Amino acid sequence: MSEERPGGASAYGAAGVDIDAQERALGGIKELVRSTATSGVLSELGSFGGLFRPDLEGYREPVLVSSADGVGTKLMVARMAGDYSTVGRDLVNHCVNDILVQGARPLFFLDYVGAGVLEEEVMGQLVGGVAEGCRENGCALLGGETAEMPGFYQEGDYELVGFIVGMVDRPLLLDGSRVRAGDRLIGLPSAGLHTNGYSLARRALLEVAGLGLDSPLEGDSRTLREVLLAPHLSYLGAVSPVLGDPGLHALAHVTGGGLTDNLPRVLPDGLAARIQRNVWTPPAEFREIQRWGEVSDDEMYRVFNMGIGMVVVVAADACERMLETLASTLARAGQGRPVVIGSVEAGHEPVLYC
Amino acid sequence: MSEERPGGASAYGAAGVDIDAQERALGGIKELVRSTATSGVLSELGSFGGLFRPDLEGYREPVLVSSADGVGTKLMVARMAGDYSTVGRDLVNHCVNDILVQGARPLFFLDYVGAGVLEEEVMGQLVGGVAEGCRENGCALLGGETAEMPGFYQEGDYELVGFIVGMVDRPLLLDGSRVRAGDRLIGLPSAGLHTNGYSLARRALLEVAGLGLDSPLEGDSRTLREVLLAPHLSYLGAVSPVLGDPGLHALAHVTGGGLTDNLPRVLPDGLAARIQRNVWTPPAEFREIQRWGEVSDDEMYRVFNMGIGMVVVVAADACERMLETLASTLARAGQGRPVVIGSVEAGHEPVLYC
Repeated sequence: MSEERPGGASAYGAAGVDIDAQERALGGIKELVRSTATSGVLSELGSFGGLFRPDLEGYREPVLVSSADGVGTKLMVARMAGDYSTVGRDLVNHCVNDILVQGARPLFFLDYVGAGVLEEEVMGQLVGGVAEGCRENGCALLGGETAEMPGFYQEGDYELVGFIVGMVDRPLLLDGSRVRAGDRLIGLPSAGLHTNGYSLARRALLEVAGLGLDSPLEGDSRTLREVLLAPHLSYLGAVSPVLGDPGLHALAHVTGGGLTDNLPRVLPDGLAARIQRNVWTPPAEFREIQRWGEVSDDEMYRVFNMGIGMVVVVAADACERMLETLASTLARAGQGRPVVIGSVEAGHEPVLYC
Repeated sequence: MSEERPGGASAYGAAGVDIDAQERALGGIKELVRSTATSGVLSELGSFGGLFRPDLEGYREPVLVSSADGVGTKLMVARMAGDYSTVGRDLVNHCVNDILVQGARPLFFLDYVGAGVLEEEVMGQLVGGVAEGCRENGCALLGGETAEMPGFYQEGDYELVGFIVGMVDRPLLLDGSRVRAGDRLIGLPSAGLHTNGYSLARRALLEVAGLGLDSPLEGDSRTLREVLLAPHLSYLGAVSPVLGDPGLHALAHVTGGGLTDNLPRVLPDGLAARIQRNVWTPPAEFREIQRWGEVSDDEMYRVFNMGIGMVVVVAADACERMLETLASTLARAGQGRPVVIGSVEAGHEPVLYC
């Protein structure tokens, strides 16, 4: 921070760190944190650690499920757009999905924000988005860390990292071991890129095609700003009612690595996923990225979700029932329609497209 | 990443991200993660989320305690020294202490590494240090995230963020409410700066004094490299035997904010800490930082730990016994001697130095 502290000269201030200004920037955060509190939260912001008392009633063998994530270079789009209000939701929803695929419901979340200088306005947007995502998912924002690292972060850049902890009863844990040949793959629609492939997307659309954030996307009613900042969807609401259903065999969150690398994470050895690409249409942004970036089909399906944000692996005889339930929960969340995108069969090439 | 993927041209590679190279960089990490496994770990690296089954036996009301942290600009010293092998331990120990002060023992840890390009060598050093810290503290490295963000991080820079979850039985939770006037403050020695105040320390010693990392520190047998990269101590081993002792009233981890801002976090309203500065000698690095940086005493004690990394608040009549126990546990860990640095009294100025 180049300005002096109000109380006078400060050696730490001269070294680029202003403790009082940091405290001002953090002032608004307490309210945001409080807005996410659930019944398990025992601590207030300002404790060394956050305290959470899990409700263990009904659990035979509680298992904690935890995941860490970032938003990647979607942060650079947020910066370019001057709008950091959506990336917090991206982060929470990404983390929620990552533990949901093992059958876990979220308990609490912590965030980390790093920057050269923490500006009050941006901090409010970042943490406001995180708090919004937490409220949507019934997940407490239990704590976090902010770091001013002048000289390390480029001016105006903000790093945002999140950590989630959820819980599942061990008998209901999803780990892929229930997957059988003949199972059906139900795809749940994504909202676009979610948080993956932004380096390639930015290069193709902003550099090669030379589009600006206010340019309309070819064949679409949205601007590039809307397309590139569309929030990562949480599938907790859609999938929650089928958790524990014996017809549910596995869930795969389609993140970096696409269908190609994420589906195999829940396929036992000797089983393969056969995906029919012609049963759904990837949103326009993927077509435009592929065209401008001259990207092969194979790479597109290994980098992007291509319009499928979550795959629900179900027993063949439960497929109709699952589709019906998912169609109704997705509709309630305004998230489009589920579609059967393929099935599981014996084989050693983990994912086959046809 | 500027090189092409072995299999040929790749659009994602041209955009700066090389998935195969990332996978090579992550290859060595599996072994490191495995080396930290404790009996609660159910998952292997590669699951969407890490799975941990806490042992609840003997707990009346288990409370999860969680904290997030970074290493700050100590990372810039690591980079300058070409040695990222110690900052992982810093991070784990910092997090362990942050939940220890509430009476919690660590269960598991997750890390996040962000860089423009993830180099195999540096990743091994970073995650190797994290794994070492985890093993020392009996804490499982349950998972983590690595992010390649070309254009966001400056070449050669690495961000390292950590997240810890521990557990305490609610009746043994330390939250400051037991602190009484008359309590004694026992200081446990730090190993130097730990992870706080590096922006000011670097400015004073490297810029103003013009010292290099191989320069000896005035009045000290160590080089600046050794001084500035000395790992943050974990106090788990030293404090563990007195957790649950009714004479233990509170613990304060002395991090950013120093004694001045961290002690009040465990003082009830109307109580103050009176600290006698003349009973211990801050390590030489603090004197040199103060001299070259022209820093006031007040600021020194608000930015740095000044040689006291943890404060143990104990009942007056338990003080002798506690000192004896802590002297022996610290000696076993090679961590110096505990010293009574002050006491708690009625008052409204939270921390008074004399």
